[in-house]
Amino acid sequence: MSALLADLYEFTMLQSYLERNMTKSAVFEFFVRKLPSNRNFLVAAGLDEALDFLEEMAFQEEELDFLSKHFPSPVIDYLETFRFDGEVHAMPEGSIFFQNEPILRITAPLPQAQLVESRIMNLLHFETLIASKAARSVLAAPDRRLVDFGLRRAHGAEAGLLAARASYLAGFSGTATVLAGMKFGIPIFGTMAHSFVEAHEQEMDAFRNFARSHPGSTLLIDTFDTELAAEKVVALAHEGLRIGGVRLDSGDLAMHARKVRKILDEGGLRDTVIFASGNLDEYSVKRLLDCPIDGFGIGTALVTSGDHPMLDCAYKLQEYDGRPCRKRSEGKATWPGRKQVYRLRDSQGRLKKDTISLECDDLEGERLIGPVMREGKRLHPRAQIAALRERTMKNYASLPESLRTIDAENIYPVEISMLLSDLSKRVDRGEIHPLASISA
Amino acid sequence: MSALLADLYEFTMLQSYLERNMTKSAVFEFFVRKLPSNRNFLVAAGLDEALDFLEEMAFQEEELDFLSKHFPSPVIDYLETFRFDGEVHAMPEGSIFFQNEPILRITAPLPQAQLVESRIMNLLHFETLIASKAARSVLAAPDRRLVDFGLRRAHGAEAGLLAARASYLAGFSGTATVLAGMKFGIPIFGTMAHSFVEAHEQEMDAFRNFARSHPGSTLLIDTFDTELAAEKVVALAHEGLRIGGVRLDSGDLAMHARKVRKILDEGGLRDTVIFASGNLDEYSVKRLLDCPIDGFGIGTALVTSGDHPMLDCAYKLQEYDGRPCRKRSEGKATWPGRKQVYRLRDSQGRLKKDTISLECDDLEGERLIGPVMREGKRLHPRAQIAALRERTMKNYASLPESLRTIDAENIYPVEISMLLSDLSKRVDRGEIHPLASISA
Repeated sequence: MSALLADLYEFTMLQSYLERNMTKSAVFEFFVRKLPSNRNFLVAAGLDEALDFLEEMAFQEEELDFLSKHFPSPVIDYLETFRFDGEVHAMPEGSIFFQNEPILRITAPLPQAQLVESRIMNLLHFETLIASKAARSVLAAPDRRLVDFGLRRAHGAEAGLLAARASYLAGFSGTATVLAGMKFGIPIFGTMAHSFVEAHEQEMDAFRNFARSHPGSTLLIDTFDTELAAEKVVALAHEGLRIGGVRLDSGDLAMHARKVRKILDEGGLRDTVIFASGNLDEYSVKRLLDCPIDGFGIGTALVTSGDHPMLDCAYKLQEYDGRPCRKRSEGKATWPGRKQVYRLRDSQGRLKKDTISLECDDLEGERLIGPVMREGKRLHPRAQIAALRERTMKNYASLPESLRTIDAENIYPVEISMLLSDLSKRVDRGEIHPLASISA
Repeated sequence: MSALLADLYEFTMLQSYLERNMTKSAVFEFFVRKLPSNRNFLVAAGLDEALDFLEEMAFQEEELDFLSKHFPSPVIDYLETFRFDGEVHAMPEGSIFFQNEPILRITAPLPQAQLVESRIMNLLHFETLIASKAARSVLAAPDRRLVDFGLRRAHGAEAGLLAARASYLAGFSGTATVLAGMKFGIPIFGTMAHSFVEAHEQEMDAFRNFARSHPGSTLLIDTFDTELAAEKVVALAHEGLRIGGVRLDSGDLAMHARKVRKILDEGGLRDTVIFASGNLDEYSVKRLLDCPIDGFGIGTALVTSGDHPMLDCAYKLQEYDGRPCRKRSEGKATWPGRKQVYRLRDSQGRLKKDTISLECDDLEGERLIGPVMREGKRLHPRAQIAALRERTMKNYASLPESLRTIDAENIYPVEISMLLSDLSKRVDRGEIHPLASISA
């Protein structure tokens, strides 16, 4: 991705920083201020793409030419050899997290840490948004096959691709998006479209042709009359063709699923599965759980996070040259300093309470944030997506029941430590200390 | 963009089409079934990117290797030399359109017209979604500067980039996204971030440094205390520094704008403009119109189309080998045949009524859909974005008052012609005719 995928102010600030020699170490953190209603927790995602971006970020000649129309030559000279060589700390992808908890921290010379802001936010926001939305369907229907069908209404190419990744990481079985299969190794699924049926003069011919080309595949049976189509599927099977499943895409899915199941069963097709799609989300999937539907294709509501298409996230300067910072803007105040999240669990291993404090604090509990990049290079090889998915599923198992429900809003306790709260007051009073002096 | 950015079923259908020699000419149309609440009209956008895609679509070796794990060699052979060589008809970008009106029609051999489905939808859906959302802010505040600030919470890179394009096309003044400036020639705007202020020990130093680097620029004044910061701006101006504007980003924007305007005016800074941002949308902009705010940065609500992050759009087969088609799925039935939209205006040139009929019909009114691509090549040179924007603004002028309001839902009359309605019944009855026989 072009390094110009950034807000203009990143470059105007850069110019001033360079002109004033403000190139000391800065600490920025990415966090979500507040969970949307209907989200009892969030699932961290997008770290892998963020690290790729930091490793690869560089300016091409055409980009420098464009910038040179807006900025003086010292800025262009700086950008010509720009490489991110800072440190990154983060929660692993698939981590469960909550309001105000940083999931990524960047420590780098101020111009660098600032310049990466827009894209870092753009990546972490979107994948976390989608993983957190996908998690709700996975929790609502843990024993059903869930497939991402959203590419066509995703917001552009990258949204389609990354929504496939984020939803798989969150526990979906796969995606319809072929490129996500190639790029991330995610299982890909596909059936047929209504156009296939319509392109044939007879629905029966369409089914027969498709089943011949793709033995064991899934036939779409709602183009004209769903139950009549199910009868045709039975007839085809009796011709000796293997039909793996049928897909319902419109109307009263519960009613059709029951009728179709009966027709298939009576026709001896007990192993032919029923797959449903058509403007589904976690709520409709949950309502359909007692129907004979084996899997769901979830599209638009998933890839746009339809009920809440954004998270109230921020990437904020928390420290510059050893001095903790915070803004006090109304309704948008932030906590200063390099932070850590300390998590306590109950005797069954379930999440009990998180405390946000400074990294230099020494609180009880698991520390959620760890180093992932040093001097601009990854510390660990890229994680396999299937392994990330397994880890995410394990994380769900550690959620208390109150957070697993999709029907009620419950707030998990996240405390601010004494140390952090004190530091915040001291920053406000102008008693500014280098971090060393405030460690516990 | 990779040609694998497509749903798997496009390829499974392709295989069957090739195996059965179903490669005759097919007609697909893209349309929106139903306008969301709070959208009295839609603005067509994304055509330029769609035509780029069709002109450039080709399969790379790595992509063919991946597909060869899923598909037999005749499919791979076909894709190896794949080029889109069909026809495209469309409404120009910036056109006002309504429910069920096709904005793009593809006529090509069935495997081609099918294979491009996912990406064509992905592009037209998103840009149309954003242009239609942006239009509402433009209509609400026609005399204010509106700037796209949304990159960070756009759904991925392409969403950020195309949202800048779509909102500019719809009448915004520009974007903060630098890459959109380079790629589309859109004016770019930028101020400063809170981090810039915080990185300095004193807000006054931050302002002074920034104004020195960027004479006439905009200072962000809400990091600590907005009115105190406005006093500092006045003091700086008295030092001889030129301050073009101030930005408010939090709290009660109306109240702060009034107080800040007074401070600036009393300090002799009558020409220093006030710019506001912070989770704005068309409603908040409208509420702020009577405040002394000269421009607005609109971010998340714009680039995610926050109240309705999706349109109920479809890309449907309307004709195959001269035979009109339609699906009758419950709640998702479509109109068959190659269609045209005929628009009537009143004596002032305002939109009065649209009729959807067949292209071969001969109704009164302006025909909205025209040829844009033949044999896979554009018929017209690429339009300049500034010209598209002007045309869109002219189109707003032709909207009746009832559709221009953002506060009430009004439905524009879109009729289905007798010819189309008859054809639909005849298709349902199985009386299938080649198109020639149904022309009026």
